[in-house]
Amino acid sequence: MQIGIIGLGRMGGNIARRLMRAGHDCAVYDISAQARADLSKDGARPAETLEGLVASLTDGPRALWVMLPAGKITEGTIAHLASCLAPGDIIIDGGNTYYKDDMRRSAELAKTGIQYIDVGTSGGVWGLERGYCLMIGGETDAVTHLDPIFAALAPGRGDIPPTQRATGSDARVEQGYIHAGPAGAGHFVKMIHNGIEYGMMQAYAEGFNILESKNAEALPVNERFALNVADIAEVWRRGSVVTSWLLDLSAAALARDPHLDGFSGYVEDSGEGRWTVEAAIEEAVPAEVLTASLYTRFRSRQTHNFAEKMLSAMRLGFGGHMEKA
Amino acid sequence: MQIGIIGLGRMGGNIARRLMRAGHDCAVYDISAQARADLSKDGARPAETLEGLVASLTDGPRALWVMLPAGKITEGTIAHLASCLAPGDIIIDGGNTYYKDDMRRSAELAKTGIQYIDVGTSGGVWGLERGYCLMIGGETDAVTHLDPIFAALAPGRGDIPPTQRATGSDARVEQGYIHAGPAGAGHFVKMIHNGIEYGMMQAYAEGFNILESKNAEALPVNERFALNVADIAEVWRRGSVVTSWLLDLSAAALARDPHLDGFSGYVEDSGEGRWTVEAAIEEAVPAEVLTASLYTRFRSRQTHNFAEKMLSAMRLGFGGHMEKA
Amino acid sequence: MQIGIIGLGRMGGNIARRLMRAGHDCAVYDISAQARADLSKDGARPAETLEGLVASLTDGPRALWVMLPAGKITEGTIAHLASCLAPGDIIIDGGNTYYKDDMRRSAELAKTGIQYIDVGTSGGVWGLERGYCLMIGGETDAVTHLDPIFAALAPGRGDIPPTQRATGSDARVEQGYIHAGPAGAGHFVKMIHNGIEYGMMQAYAEGFNILESKNAEALPVNERFALNVADIAEVWRRGSVVTSWLLDLSAAALARDPHLDGFSGYVEDSGEGRWTVEAAIEEAVPAEVLTASLYTRFRSRQTHNFAEKMLSAMRLGFGGHMEKA
Amino acid sequence: MQIGIIGLGRMGGNIARRLMRAGHDCAVYDISAQARADLSKDGARPAETLEGLVASLTDGPRALWVMLPAGKITEGTIAHLASCLAPGDIIIDGGNTYYKDDMRRSAELAKTGIQYIDVGTSGGVWGLERGYCLMIGGETDAVTHLDPIFAALAPGRGDIPPTQRATGSDARVEQGYIHAGPAGAGHFVKMIHNGIEYGMMQAYAEGFNILESKNAEALPVNERFALNVADIAEVWRRGSVVTSWLLDLSAAALARDPHLDGFSGYVEDSGEGRWTVEAAIEEAVPAEVLTASLYTRFRSRQTHNFAEKMLSAMRLGFGGHMEKA
Repeated sequence: MQIGIIGLGRMGGNIARRLMRAGHDCAVYDISAQARADLSKDGARPAETLEGLVASLTDGPRALWVMLPAGKITEGTIAHLASCLAPGDIIIDGGNTYYKDDMRRSAELAKTGIQYIDVGTSGGVWGLERGYCLMIGGETDAVTHLDPIFAALAPGRGDIPPTQRATGSDARVEQGYIHAGPAGAGHFVKMIHNGIEYGMMQAYAEGFNILESKNAEALPVNERFALNVADIAEVWRRGSVVTSWLLDLSAAALARDPHLDGFSGYVEDSGEGRWTVEAAIEEAVPAEVLTASLYTRFRSRQTHNFAEKMLSAMRLGFGGHMEKA
Repeated sequence: MQIGIIGLGRMGGNIARRLMRAGHDCAVYDISAQARADLSKDGARPAETLEGLVASLTDGPRALWVMLPAGKITEGTIAHLASCLAPGDIIIDGGNTYYKDDMRRSAELAKTGIQYIDVGTSGGVWGLERGYCLMIGGETDAVTHLDPIFAALAPGRGDIPPTQRATGSDARVEQGYIHAGPAGAGHFVKMIHNGIEYGMMQAYAEGFNILESKNAEALPVNERFALNVADIAEVWRRGSVVTSWLLDLSAAALARDPHLDGFSGYVEDSGEGRWTVEAAIEEAVPAEVLTASLYTRFRSRQTHNFAEKMLSAMRLGFGGHMEKA
Repeated sequence: MQIGIIGLGRMGGNIARRLMRAGHDCAVYDISAQARADLSKDGARPAETLEGLVASLTDGPRALWVMLPAGKITEGTIAHLASCLAPGDIIIDGGNTYYKDDMRRSAELAKTGIQYIDVGTSGGVWGLERGYCLMIGGETDAVTHLDPIFAALAPGRGDIPPTQRATGSDARVEQGYIHAGPAGAGHFVKMIHNGIEYGMMQAYAEGFNILESKNAEALPVNERFALNVADIAEVWRRGSVVTSWLLDLSAAALARDPHLDGFSGYVEDSGEGRWTVEAAIEEAVPAEVLTASLYTRFRSRQTHNFAEKMLSAMRLGFGGHMEKA
Repeated sequence: MQIGIIGLGRMGGNIARRLMRAGHDCAVYDISAQARADLSKDGARPAETLEGLVASLTDGPRALWVMLPAGKITEGTIAHLASCLAPGDIIIDGGNTYYKDDMRRSAELAKTGIQYIDVGTSGGVWGLERGYCLMIGGETDAVTHLDPIFAALAPGRGDIPPTQRATGSDARVEQGYIHAGPAGAGHFVKMIHNGIEYGMMQAYAEGFNILESKNAEALPVNERFALNVADIAEVWRRGSVVTSWLLDLSAAALARDPHLDGFSGYVEDSGEGRWTVEAAIEEAVPAEVLTASLYTRFRSRQTHNFAEKMLSAMRLGFGGHMEKA
């Protein structure tokens, strides 16, 4: 089917490509002429303005997939887009938008008859080949209308062993996409996905750190091992309880750079980890691990913080210990 | 090759079976006559005493795999066994022993010429079919001698995509077993494996809890969704960043029992999670997530604790708030 | 000076009383006739409506202290009050309002010329006698105008040893009140005060729990002590590093009820603890302890949660362990 | 009474001085001639060897207070001392010894008839003037015999408001010393005291950090305040819920150095914080806050750790994000 795609970065460009490979007709827009030209070579129909993009879509209702950084850019683009569309048309936000923004926007757009769909999209740079796991929120009619798009983007069953599920279970989830609920539900589920991702990553990171630190010269000789962390990551990929795709990636990274000297240790975080903590607090449920995973990233970006200096100041106060630098 | 196996529970029995399927000759012992009889039906040679088991091993050096609960039982069995063996014979502790106990035992047995190998064994009830991921500590000669045993127990390459590794990398790890280092190194690596397992499990648990709690009547209607947690677990198995074997198991459990009503929420822990924290502390490295994962299990087994009562007592003290029951 | 006080609960009533003891003229309002009558007996001038309260204030600019539960009640009362006031009049929110609500309200009221002051008020049920520690946000003129009120409510220097401070330091803080900054700054500082309070309480709670649990029958006899936790709390009040007012309250509570049998262990939390975590996240700084303190309270109010059931479900999946109830 | 004191560092020297001020007869020993000379000037009887020290004690049973760094030095000194003593003599370990070492030593010494007392000593550099809070473990006879020593070292009632306690309560705790239980109980209680101290310090540190970071240029201008953290610490000393001695020390430090520029942020930890975590784990009770407080100190001493690099490596693996340095 026909779809317009706005934002041709790493994610948006590959989404267009995967759709075209499945035979869909992609009209595309990006502020970068280079990005438009690249997609054009791969078979997309580029437009130089949002208006032009909308005009190039001939099938109704028109479907427009916005794939931009969450926040002001997405917000402004959707507002602009809405001004070009007609009742019945569908805006899809495939980025990492905060689910409460989806709920608000969906309600606002509903007044004009424009349909709004939020899609959490997982798969990263591997999605073009592996497919994208899609978590979708919005009205059923629009989700059903877009089914060919979702089916093309999703990974499909692949060779993943089937789970024994109840008769009548939603078959789409076995293809790798889910209609999670009304507006916001897609991004809510994606947000939690990322929260879990933070926790899993931190679990591996701490474990590998304890292994690597078991080799450290700081330990007495008779308590020290000479563990090969890269080999350990590799062996765990087979038959252990901690097998996962993140472990596969870890093993590959360690095989290339056994002590990860190529990395500084400065770690960014994105909105989903933060919003996950806020969701837990709103629900009044504990989320120790997901929160601790966020905080280690915050700390990784500081040299020292005022909190630590306060500790030293108190220690000096009661014990006369002046910390060494 | 020939091997004696002591302890025919869920793990030991299946280890014997997997070895026999690979053509190895298994002499077996368990205090339960029933367990001995079961293995006998599957082709093992049962012995009624440890002495009898040792006597039934005709090839030298004799190899004895102890697969018993860590602690006193394993300790006593190994001491007893050592008294029946000769220099050069090999005792393998395949259980979940604390790695410092391995280091001590190995040094003690070395005085008598008996070789000691510690093997961390992952794979649980699935190991018979999937194979066991083995983490091995001990002297190289003994590890090399036992290679046919380890190779038979390990999963092998299977259909897991290979990692691009440096020329000359240890090929055994791609088969699912590793010689991690000297005595204790095998159980050390297995301990950290379990520590990571705790952290990953807790990451999923917290995430699914936030999802499930998003449906809760405690929330205002307009903040509530009706998420299908079982479907979400299933969809994440395809193309998402959080795919893992633990997710496969979670999806299967949720498909059977969507709200997990069959579980009380009381969660045990085993020694490895605790020892992982102690290892982090000995190395003076933080392990927030692995530790928090342990503490949630402790808390799950209490109705209320004294700490909580202290909080209420202080609140009453300064604010006059008497907590409701 | 003359002041109107709205809300005569535990906090508001005592604030009026402490002001009257210092010779101030208090007009008061509460929806409860009983509360109005009680304050009237203590010398306040009761009004039966907000309009009546405003009318009873003869000195300009009129000052009205709102002491109500944060949220809708405070919000509505301030809106109502604003409609009765004139430019230059001052509304003081002495409750536990979210500081961003202060910032918004202050900006809105500024359009009408009404001045807005936020006051974080610490001291609980002891404030009438001990005085209240006040953290004040708003424009300097209004804060200066209200100085006699703040000075009367604050504890004063008392017998607390002075800190050696720089010449020209703000002397008011040594009296127990601070002008922390513009609108919102007062409640921001109070919010962090409460965040710290959560962390300190949890630190004591965990420590006392480890002491009490050292006596538990669950431990082997030779690892058990028979510690008198109440006596330990008492002894720490003298000369130790952990002396504090919270410890004084703990010691008093334990002296009355050594095992705290009168408490269920169900612990409420209020908004400040949650907002503190959100503030840390907005600033991208870690707050492990303050957050963990919030989560233990969440957990204290659940019997078991879905997260724990997920852990058991996974354990059953890989290990065949069915948790006991 | 007469007592020998071994170890004349910051703690031991002042303990001797406080005892002499109370009229006790102190024989002292230290490896440093200077330290011996200093105490001699203050009225102590110095000895040049342990043997000489023991010989200089004329009253029986002899009491020897060891005030040395926990670990090998204390262990060796006590062993040496024991070889010079006779049945009935009393060794007091006033340092920060692990309580299980006390239990072992006490049992060993009991075979020779030597009595062993463990004393946790809190008060730091302020103890000489304020007195030391003492937590004592050991047999009742020896504790009773040493009562004049403990009474002299403890702060006494001072002007701390009394707690209403049951008739017959141990009056010594109101003087600032407690006989907590048998050998090891003193250091166990002191260990938990320090664990709580870590948690309280971290609670303040995090709170002050959120305050200080609210001024940071990293925040948008309209979300920024210009809080005076030193003034806030000072104001909280009066009437707030978070008053404490640690707050007094914090306020003094901030008054001297408002942004704590004199501190690097590198923070040491001592054994008690670690042992507290181990005690919690042995009891299977959660201690989130006390543990997190330990981990932030570990992290403060690292520039970056392998865990953080692992996170970046995984992020690069799935998302193509190369972290900036």
